[in-house]
Amino acid sequence: MSVAIKLASPRSPSPFSLRDFLATRTTAVNRTLDQLLPAATTKPATIHRAMRYSLFAGGKRIRPALCLAAAAACGGNESDALPLACAIECIHTYSLVHDDLPAMDDDDYRRGKLTNHKVFGEGIAVLAGDALLTQAFEIAALSRSWPRYSHQAIVLELARAAGSLQLIAGQVADLEGEGKRISARQLRYIHERKTSALLCCSVRLGGMSANCTPAQLKALTDFGYHVGLAFQVIDDILDVTQTSEKLGKTAGKDTKAQKATYPSIVGLERSRKIAEQLTERAFASLKGFRGKAVALEALAEYLLRRDR
Amino acid sequence: MSVAIKLASPRSPSPFSLRDFLATRTTAVNRTLDQLLPAATTKPATIHRAMRYSLFAGGKRIRPALCLAAAAACGGNESDALPLACAIECIHTYSLVHDDLPAMDDDDYRRGKLTNHKVFGEGIAVLAGDALLTQAFEIAALSRSWPRYSHQAIVLELARAAGSLQLIAGQVADLEGEGKRISARQLRYIHERKTSALLCCSVRLGGMSANCTPAQLKALTDFGYHVGLAFQVIDDILDVTQTSEKLGKTAGKDTKAQKATYPSIVGLERSRKIAEQLTERAFASLKGFRGKAVALEALAEYLLRRDR
Repeated sequence: MSVAIKLASPRSPSPFSLRDFLATRTTAVNRTLDQLLPAATTKPATIHRAMRYSLFAGGKRIRPALCLAAAAACGGNESDALPLACAIECIHTYSLVHDDLPAMDDDDYRRGKLTNHKVFGEGIAVLAGDALLTQAFEIAALSRSWPRYSHQAIVLELARAAGSLQLIAGQVADLEGEGKRISARQLRYIHERKTSALLCCSVRLGGMSANCTPAQLKALTDFGYHVGLAFQVIDDILDVTQTSEKLGKTAGKDTKAQKATYPSIVGLERSRKIAEQLTERAFASLKGFRGKAVALEALAEYLLRRDR
Repeated sequence: MSVAIKLASPRSPSPFSLRDFLATRTTAVNRTLDQLLPAATTKPATIHRAMRYSLFAGGKRIRPALCLAAAAACGGNESDALPLACAIECIHTYSLVHDDLPAMDDDDYRRGKLTNHKVFGEGIAVLAGDALLTQAFEIAALSRSWPRYSHQAIVLELARAAGSLQLIAGQVADLEGEGKRISARQLRYIHERKTSALLCCSVRLGGMSANCTPAQLKALTDFGYHVGLAFQVIDDILDVTQTSEKLGKTAGKDTKAQKATYPSIVGLERSRKIAEQLTERAFASLKGFRGKAVALEALAEYLLRRDR
């Protein structure tokens, strides 16, 4: 893989620092989320404290970063993409809050902190997830629109990625697959929906905020799809190879729940190879951006190499 | 109250039949929902069966009827309001599915049928609610828009009514109020959010689909607010006075859950009086429609007089 070389692209005026990019964008996203959400003291305070608890529990803001990086790659203004980046993070957080519920994955820890229902109780956790999902659409509707990418297009994009044919389909298939022998093909189906759909949506919305060309949107779709799949393969690998402390969530839970994963189906070594190949495919789809997609490239590389 | 007289308005060309109105509109709404939702066989079938199970469990389609009646009152084409009517019913159904969960109201029956989680399990019920909420925004984005009422305005309207300051705030306050002594004022706060918000949104969206004037929108807002409050007072009364068979859901559960209700705070007779006064206020707000709001008037009357 020629990933490392691409990071220091000769076309970028100064060496690109992913660490700086992630730090500054995380700050911007956190500040915007803080402004867009009702204050923790707003009545009824419980729900707003619960929403904020999970939203500000130390998430890595990968999806918002991908959204902003896609906007930059298309020559857009990142501030136009910021509300969409925040909307996606709300949807991602809601899905984690509901996924951690006893009726679902039944997890006590997430990002090293107690899960929402362990702090606020199951009833409030259900409602906090509901509220974050609803908030996402309110925020998305406040974003900048273009003739080609109207609020209608933006809301449809978000609703479809989060809906019963994508994100929720992935959760359902994941839930139903527990304890069953499933094929690599079926596992790909789950990963496409559980992870790729929202990652793909992140970069697509970033592109749309920048009024991207149809060709750019297609390239971003391809990139998001492959990065999303690689992301989930790596997640599966980390679940097997890392400790709970390192992950900030319960390690080994896939094995415990008898969930099919890439390592369990094709082995660790082959899984790593697959993740690399998927990342290469993601890189290939960025060719048309001619060096302007440096942040997207760096993010794909980072997501492949991460150890938690 | 002069409600009965108003129903046979001298301005309406033929006597208005609410029974016919409800029957035809329920059919139209059911047909549209069936078309808009993924088929029950669409993969993953479980989630689509679960969504459809609660959506087609015999709901009275009050909110869609109010939405369509509001469109008609503003001289609009009811078919333009139909997707919005369906979006609201999806949100209403999602809120019931989540409200019935063991972690919330813990109910086994709804509309005379087993609740979603009793049939599909808690995990799928959480996801089915999530999917219905998400579907609502997809459907709303597919509705007709106007320069004055863009998709942005429509989505914001829906997201705010369903969000943490309105519908969800009502659920939270309701959950937190159990077993506590609360004042009539606090109870009004809960009812405004738990019930009025979505009923108000129903008529407002109906008006918006008809490109209503700002004055009409204000009148509909006032109407929806008061009908919503009356609706919830009647709901509280029925919970005390009717059997579970009649209601199709567990009767007397407010008392059992030590929930404050209008009857428990001000007594049955005074509660009935309040519901009548609220309905009169709702009627008063329709004056400007000069007889074109006949369906809205009939619905308000019906909601006041209903026995289940």
